[in-house]
Amino acid sequence: MRTTEGWQATDGTTRLRRVAVPRRDLRDGDIAVRVDYCGVCHSDLHSIHRSGSDGAVPGHEFVGTVTELGSDVAALRVGQLVAIGTIVDSCGECDACRAGQENYCAEGATLTYGGTDRVDGSRTAGGYSREYVLSARFAYPLPEGLDPAAAAPLLCAGITVWEPLRVTGIGPGSRVAVAGMGGLGHLAIKLAVALGAEVTVLSRTVEKADDARALGAARLVLSTDEAALRDAAGSFDLILDTISAPHDVPPLLDLLAIDGTLCMLGFFGEVAVPVMRLMMGRKRLTSSGTGGRAHTAELLEFCAERGITADVEVLPSARVSEALDRLETGDVRYRFVLDLADLDAG
Amino acid sequence: MRTTEGWQATDGTTRLRRVAVPRRDLRDGDIAVRVDYCGVCHSDLHSIHRSGSDGAVPGHEFVGTVTELGSDVAALRVGQLVAIGTIVDSCGECDACRAGQENYCAEGATLTYGGTDRVDGSRTAGGYSREYVLSARFAYPLPEGLDPAAAAPLLCAGITVWEPLRVTGIGPGSRVAVAGMGGLGHLAIKLAVALGAEVTVLSRTVEKADDARALGAARLVLSTDEAALRDAAGSFDLILDTISAPHDVPPLLDLLAIDGTLCMLGFFGEVAVPVMRLMMGRKRLTSSGTGGRAHTAELLEFCAERGITADVEVLPSARVSEALDRLETGDVRYRFVLDLADLDAG
Repeated sequence: MRTTEGWQATDGTTRLRRVAVPRRDLRDGDIAVRVDYCGVCHSDLHSIHRSGSDGAVPGHEFVGTVTELGSDVAALRVGQLVAIGTIVDSCGECDACRAGQENYCAEGATLTYGGTDRVDGSRTAGGYSREYVLSARFAYPLPEGLDPAAAAPLLCAGITVWEPLRVTGIGPGSRVAVAGMGGLGHLAIKLAVALGAEVTVLSRTVEKADDARALGAARLVLSTDEAALRDAAGSFDLILDTISAPHDVPPLLDLLAIDGTLCMLGFFGEVAVPVMRLMMGRKRLTSSGTGGRAHTAELLEFCAERGITADVEVLPSARVSEALDRLETGDVRYRFVLDLADLDAG
Repeated sequence: MRTTEGWQATDGTTRLRRVAVPRRDLRDGDIAVRVDYCGVCHSDLHSIHRSGSDGAVPGHEFVGTVTELGSDVAALRVGQLVAIGTIVDSCGECDACRAGQENYCAEGATLTYGGTDRVDGSRTAGGYSREYVLSARFAYPLPEGLDPAAAAPLLCAGITVWEPLRVTGIGPGSRVAVAGMGGLGHLAIKLAVALGAEVTVLSRTVEKADDARALGAARLVLSTDEAALRDAAGSFDLILDTISAPHDVPPLLDLLAIDGTLCMLGFFGEVAVPVMRLMMGRKRLTSSGTGGRAHTAELLEFCAERGITADVEVLPSARVSEALDRLETGDVRYRFVLDLADLDAG
């Protein structure tokens, strides 16, 4: 056993406490990674608010530097930059794992934080820390040319929007709407545009129109403008709904074309769905949970080729509470990333 | 204006009354059809129970004989058998119509009964009658070799299950479940099996197991058998849910494989959907409403090639109340069809 430094939720508030975080000694297939940059995800907030006195060390989208290799690890080298996302292990043998969808592992993929290690049963602690130890299978070499801090959010926000874009076959000629323009939404715009789609942003905030266009969107439709919504009815092949607050599904279904898909990526509670609204136009309601190894590696290659990263604001990790509080009020363009180097100071 | 005889709902009960039904004089693109056989669909019951004193003449899956052609109709001939389904007109110009999905016409397809004629605004009356007048575009030549009475249900029950089978790409190797084994369900089994799928029936009634196998299903899983449901978890690419009563969606979602689709075809009210259950496995909830001209013609050709029709019980139309009452209690294997010839008697 070894320890590193990290930031832990201890009372359900965003006042995280700096603590010593235990890390396991390396198994044969493991690597140790010095965490350089870790994104601040909306689900970190949920986890923190659910915390008791021994809460999570959050963080599941980070980039770091390999510092040590287990005896069986040949594919990586010390000093290499790697990216790590929301899962760090899976059974490797079920249908989902064999299909490269370890995120849907039949035994449950091991979450990067708040998960349970498959070998020793310990609780996993995330990337708001200076070191992480994991199976090399779930560390993705960071392609050349991607800024490490700005690439970190690709590992959760990015892959979360990438999988549904790929699974629904979005490409030139596709009409994609992105509801909500935060961490997920701004990457959804960039990625859909890069795939060749015409992208519309759905937002309650007209002030985001310029930003939406700067990110590549063709237009912004105000979700409070009933005339604009009527004009947009039946016009999208895919809506990536990144809104995390509870909201009505039917108005979004009305915007779908025949065989269109509404993919909910921000809210996972119960929604009321009038089946008639799916029936008229054979529309689909779905959701998606991050991504497997195959899609994640594909995403990183695609982003390197196209020069796509998140728009980030980088803060020293000691300012994590400020990042969380501003995220909570939506005051972020578009992803906070923690620089963990300050944890090296005593 | 001309009249024919038919059966009309007049008091919300299944005691339909024999009435004179007005039919329009033929327009240039119209044909007149002597209705020979008309299926009794569950939605007829809904319509009848909603009726006041001037209720519907139901019936939207029928086969008949062309008796008269409008001046512009060259593709059909007098004496030819044709099949007519749930829609009899559409705008012909919207995206849906141009894609052959007239069932999702942007202006609203004209329903075969209870619809509004696009030209004169009159209310349409259905196939529980001896004659129907409609645009030749929505009359499908009945391929050789299909029994007219047993083919009638293909035009609603059949096409309703055929479109989702085709749209989801069901073929050899696909794993399809059919929930509910009535008019739609029994055709869903036959068609999915004919497409090469392995078919499982989900039913509350173990006594249907022999019938399910006789229709081609590999097995019946009792929907009350929790152990069997656990065994079947994650195992279907498509569930065609033909249950018309309100029922819970999540237990069906649990049976879907990754990227699997639950298509609700019997119940169109509001359902509660925990998005988390869609997220785990990227599952899809959808529905579908009958079919357009292209899929309908395709279905009839497929059925003629494979010798597929509905299992029907044919009754003289004067016994329509008996058919409706027995349908209401589920006492039908698997579709009632009315023989309208008795309406020729005075």
